[in-house]
Amino acid sequence: MERTEAAFSELVANDLYAVEELMRQRVIEIHPNLEYAINHLLAAGGKRIRPVLTLLTGRMLDADPEKTVTLAAAIEMLHTATLVHDDLIDGAKVRRGKPTLNAKWPTGATVLTGDYVFARAARLAAGTGSVELMKLFAQQLMIMVNGEISQLFDSNINNLRKGYFDRISAKTASLFEIATFGPALLSDCDESIKGEMKSFGYEIGIAFQIVDDVLDFMADEDHLGKPVAHDLKQGLITLPSLLYYEANPDDPSLAQILNGDDV
Amino acid sequence: MERTEAAFSELVANDLYAVEELMRQRVIEIHPNLEYAINHLLAAGGKRIRPVLTLLTGRMLDADPEKTVTLAAAIEMLHTATLVHDDLIDGAKVRRGKPTLNAKWPTGATVLTGDYVFARAARLAAGTGSVELMKLFAQQLMIMVNGEISQLFDSNINNLRKGYFDRISAKTASLFEIATFGPALLSDCDESIKGEMKSFGYEIGIAFQIVDDVLDFMADEDHLGKPVAHDLKQGLITLPSLLYYEANPDDPSLAQILNGDDV
Repeated sequence: MERTEAAFSELVANDLYAVEELMRQRVIEIHPNLEYAINHLLAAGGKRIRPVLTLLTGRMLDADPEKTVTLAAAIEMLHTATLVHDDLIDGAKVRRGKPTLNAKWPTGATVLTGDYVFARAARLAAGTGSVELMKLFAQQLMIMVNGEISQLFDSNINNLRKGYFDRISAKTASLFEIATFGPALLSDCDESIKGEMKSFGYEIGIAFQIVDDVLDFMADEDHLGKPVAHDLKQGLITLPSLLYYEANPDDPSLAQILNGDDV
Repeated sequence: MERTEAAFSELVANDLYAVEELMRQRVIEIHPNLEYAINHLLAAGGKRIRPVLTLLTGRMLDADPEKTVTLAAAIEMLHTATLVHDDLIDGAKVRRGKPTLNAKWPTGATVLTGDYVFARAARLAAGTGSVELMKLFAQQLMIMVNGEISQLFDSNINNLRKGYFDRISAKTASLFEIATFGPALLSDCDESIKGEMKSFGYEIGIAFQIVDDVLDFMADEDHLGKPVAHDLKQGLITLPSLLYYEANPDDPSLAQILNGDDV
C-alpha cells in the first residue's frame, strides 16, 4: 500500500509542493508564538491524502490548476484545524509521532490556534473565488463539528454500527467529499459528473477511515505515530472492535469498555 | 444614551427581526444539545450593535437589502463564536446577566459549539455571494484571534497604552470595520467611499470599546450583566485604569495587579 500511495503523490508532486507553500504563507503579521505553533502543526506533516486526492481529481476534470492548488491547501488547513481541537478535547498527547499542540501549550492558546487555522482555511477557500465552494466548506464543517458533539453526548450503545458509520461519515467522509466534489465545482464538467464526484469522495472517505481504524489495531507504533489500539483504550468502538463484539457479545472485557469502565 | 441606541435600532427594526430569524435558521440537522446551546447563546441577546450598524450603513449606501441582512447575521454570529471561546479561555461565568456556556458545559462541548457557530458565520457570509466579503471575514477573524493570542502571551508592561490600543483594535475594531466596510462592498459606491466606510467602522469600534471599558467601572451590575470592574479583577488593564496608572504610577495596588498578583 505504501508504494501505491507514493506513486499517487508523485503524479502531483509539483502541485503538492505549491500546496505546502500556500499553507505556510503568512497573510497577516502574527505573534511569534502563533507562528511557531503553525509551523509545528505543518511540520508534523501527515500523509496529505486529502490534497493529493483533490489535485488528482482536479487534473482528471481539467479544473483550473491554480484554484485546485488553493482548494487543496484550504482542505488540508481545515483538516489541521479540526485536529487541533479534537486532540485538545480527547487529551491526545501524540499525533504523527510528535507531541500535539495541547501537550505543550495551555488550553486557551490551543483553542485560539485552532481558530486561527480555521480562519486561514476560510481565507484559502475564498481564494478559489467560488461562492458555491465556500458554502460547501462551511456546511461540511458544520457536519463535522455536529458529528464530534454527537460523539461526546451519545453512547450509541443500542446501535453501535449506526453510531460508527454516522461518526465516520461526519468526521472523515464529509471532508473527503470536498476533495473530489470541490474540483468538480471548479471545472466545467456536467452536473451528473458533479454528483458522481460527490459520492466518490464520500465513499473513499468511509473506506479510508475503516482502513485507518484497522491500522489502529494492526500497525506498530513507529509506523502509526501514535499508541496502538488507542481508540479502544479511549473507549471508542471502531469497526474491528464492533465486529468482534457482534461475534462475541458475551466477552466481559468489551462490555466493560462499552460501559465506560477503565481497562 | 439608552434612548439614542433604541432610536437607532427602531430605524431598522424589521430588518433586525429578519437578522434574528436568519441567525436561528437551521441549515443541517443537529444534535439536540447543540441546538439547545445555540438557542441559549442567541437568547442571551446582547445589544446587537454590530447588526444595527451594518443595516444602517447598508441603507445609507443603498446596498442590496437581503444581502445586507445576511451580512448583519454573519457578523453577529462571528461575534458570538468569538465570545464562546473567549469566555471559555477567561473562565468567565456570566455574560449579559446569564451563565456562559462554559459555566454549564464541559470544555470539549464548549470548544465545539464555538466551532459550529464559526461555521454558521462562514455559511452566512458566503450567503452574501461576495468573494471579497468572504476574504475580509476570514482576514478579520485572523486579526481578532491573533490579538487574543498576543494578549495571552504579552504583558505589554513596558508600553501599556500601545498594548491597550493594539488589543481593542484587534478584538473590537476589526469586526466593526466589517459592519461598515461590508455593506460598502455590497453596494455600488465609489472606491473612495469604501475606504472611508472602512475607517469609519474601525473608529466607531475603538470608541465603542473605550465606552464599554468605562462602563465596566461606572455601571451597576444589573445594567452591565456581569460583575463590576471585572477586567481589573482579571488583571486586565483598560483605558480608565491605564489613565489612573499614568497619573499615579506609585500606587502599590495597581502595581500588584500589573505584576499578576491576586487582589
